[in-house]
Amino acid sequence: MEEFCAPRRLLLGPGPSNVHPRVLQAMATSLVGHLDQAFLAVMNDVQTRLRRLFSTANRLTIAVSGTGSAGMEAAVVNIVEPGDAVIVGVNGVFGTRLATIVERCGGKAIRIEVPWGQIIEPDLIEEKLRRSGPVKAVVLVHAETSTGAWQPIEPMSAMCRAHDALLIVDAVTSLAGLPVEVDRWGIDVCYSATQKCLSCPPGLAPLTVNDRALSVIRSRRTPCQSWYFDLSLIADYWTEHNRAYHHTAPISMLYALRESLRIIAEEGLPARFARHHLNSRALMAGLLALGFDPVPPVDYRLPTLLCVTVPTLIDEGAVRAQLLERFDIEIGGGLGHLKGKVWRIGLMGESSTEANVLTLLNALEEIGIQNGWVTIPGIALQAAASTYSRGR
Amino acid sequence: MEEFCAPRRLLLGPGPSNVHPRVLQAMATSLVGHLDQAFLAVMNDVQTRLRRLFSTANRLTIAVSGTGSAGMEAAVVNIVEPGDAVIVGVNGVFGTRLATIVERCGGKAIRIEVPWGQIIEPDLIEEKLRRSGPVKAVVLVHAETSTGAWQPIEPMSAMCRAHDALLIVDAVTSLAGLPVEVDRWGIDVCYSATQKCLSCPPGLAPLTVNDRALSVIRSRRTPCQSWYFDLSLIADYWTEHNRAYHHTAPISMLYALRESLRIIAEEGLPARFARHHLNSRALMAGLLALGFDPVPPVDYRLPTLLCVTVPTLIDEGAVRAQLLERFDIEIGGGLGHLKGKVWRIGLMGESSTEANVLTLLNALEEIGIQNGWVTIPGIALQAAASTYSRGR
Repeated sequence: MEEFCAPRRLLLGPGPSNVHPRVLQAMATSLVGHLDQAFLAVMNDVQTRLRRLFSTANRLTIAVSGTGSAGMEAAVVNIVEPGDAVIVGVNGVFGTRLATIVERCGGKAIRIEVPWGQIIEPDLIEEKLRRSGPVKAVVLVHAETSTGAWQPIEPMSAMCRAHDALLIVDAVTSLAGLPVEVDRWGIDVCYSATQKCLSCPPGLAPLTVNDRALSVIRSRRTPCQSWYFDLSLIADYWTEHNRAYHHTAPISMLYALRESLRIIAEEGLPARFARHHLNSRALMAGLLALGFDPVPPVDYRLPTLLCVTVPTLIDEGAVRAQLLERFDIEIGGGLGHLKGKVWRIGLMGESSTEANVLTLLNALEEIGIQNGWVTIPGIALQAAASTYSRGR
Repeated sequence: MEEFCAPRRLLLGPGPSNVHPRVLQAMATSLVGHLDQAFLAVMNDVQTRLRRLFSTANRLTIAVSGTGSAGMEAAVVNIVEPGDAVIVGVNGVFGTRLATIVERCGGKAIRIEVPWGQIIEPDLIEEKLRRSGPVKAVVLVHAETSTGAWQPIEPMSAMCRAHDALLIVDAVTSLAGLPVEVDRWGIDVCYSATQKCLSCPPGLAPLTVNDRALSVIRSRRTPCQSWYFDLSLIADYWTEHNRAYHHTAPISMLYALRESLRIIAEEGLPARFARHHLNSRALMAGLLALGFDPVPPVDYRLPTLLCVTVPTLIDEGAVRAQLLERFDIEIGGGLGHLKGKVWRIGLMGESSTEANVLTLLNALEEIGIQNGWVTIPGIALQAAASTYSRGR
């Protein structure tokens, strides 16, 4: 078996995104023990920085030892007990998955289903809250990675509190790419993943839990069905002056997360959000010029993940394969019933750059000219350039 | 926040062990997508090599996306359904944890408890199998990381089959350090962790499941309570010509695991096992000369993790702190009721070297001379040297 030599990919799919060389370097740092003071200091640093990213003062702000789906599972299994009713907004793959996980906890998932790509209107949630009996939690996906829809969260908090329901939010494809204001929006539990807008390799799920949710967890009637994700135990490991051993943390991943959080702090969140916004507008202008239409309605399009319908005259699978093989560019296809119909193009973290936008559009134009679906060379680049010149 | 500079530690605790520079280098390899052909090839390589390590032909041989405890949880939650009776050997922390996880699945844990450090005799299991009603599984810890006890597994398989119970084995601190013969011993589900004898950073749990166990999983009455660890779904991602997206794999960790498996193959398993055996004997000779007594009985002492009682005249916490602060050597203290009474010294993977054995013994002698519990300088080194000279 030979040494593995990774092809050099431009990662513009739904994640992972490209990783800064400093973060890769951090991954290669030699190990210390998971109870070593030097490592506990890394954990402290990660917690401090994650709180800023989530805009929260929550003490229980940690990185779950698993990928984004582990964060999702941790968020749900700690809150939901058998028999609990939970309202879940279902407008894509990840809302669907959340409802499944609620049911695997023995919870009753009350699905609010809207067409994929649409958002869940606050009225729908309010109505369900009014008509259902006691509801333990409302679960929403802030950034639906399967459709590119940007779900408003802020209007939901007051109605959840009025009905004594917790608000759980999936911020996998938003955190560090657009504002996630946990405290101001009244989110009780929020989780994300490292491999999207944080531009750290996959393997950790940032998670924050406020005291309201923590008291719900601490007063469960039944133990959490997962031992690995049991926050009442994990919290003791992440609490300074306690550090009770629970499981061995993925040490190198935490080194990497610390470094990616340092890079994010150097850029500053406002500049970072503005960068994501501008690059997504430029790419969208180019895609529109090429005949691709965005799936979500105009005010609800994520800047971190663009989901566009592929015109029927374009063989989407063949073009994606060419992008990967000829240009080393990865973009994503559709999931579920959008398979074969849409592309999902991520501009997340390190991947959200002007150079990457232009590189992708140029490659698409080149393939389009060869295949006859682009007739005016430079049309997409021009549209992007025009956005950039207006944007600065 | 400054760049993180890791202190250079000699990791001789219960894990993580030291990592080969080639594995650290692999961690820093740039990312490709989790559905990229280049990455799927990495997964194939990992599967092929893990099968050799587990001595199995099991198709479902994978790395679970979490640390060793995630492997434990995956093994249990996929097999155990509410109401299932499961016999668990409890002779340390990890058997205790396994029983807890069985109960969190709604299973009935039938504990066979023996004093910590002892092994579970086959007769005890046979008796429980005979006296209990139908038993879904027997769960045993091959290498108890909390006590250093080496549990025989081979005699258990026939009796499990006779009673139609699955045999689940925790090989966290044994795999790649001593023989784990999944097929020959008739183990149905076996899991491990990367940060012990594989000398890869923590973050993955190798797991293998035979067809007998897989058919039990596929014919469950209830869905697996964990979505993240649901092997009926994960298997589809790890199966060639299928590769259905389940969750984003921790890509860099799989790069690292592939490289560590390559290094293991270069050394060869017999040479690797002999190395672990020799170094543990040399260290034990030195520790005995210093007055430390091993916790497990003579025939059941792990070569990968030595658990010794600390003489009462030695302040164990102070000495461990000195080892770490003055010598940059990490060893482990006791867990549970062994806290403050024992040391756990790991000689796993890259950490199991003659140089490390001598370095640790020399440091202990130096501290012991200063504190008056060593009177003859070189006594431990001499004992180790004598073992080495006889061992070759």
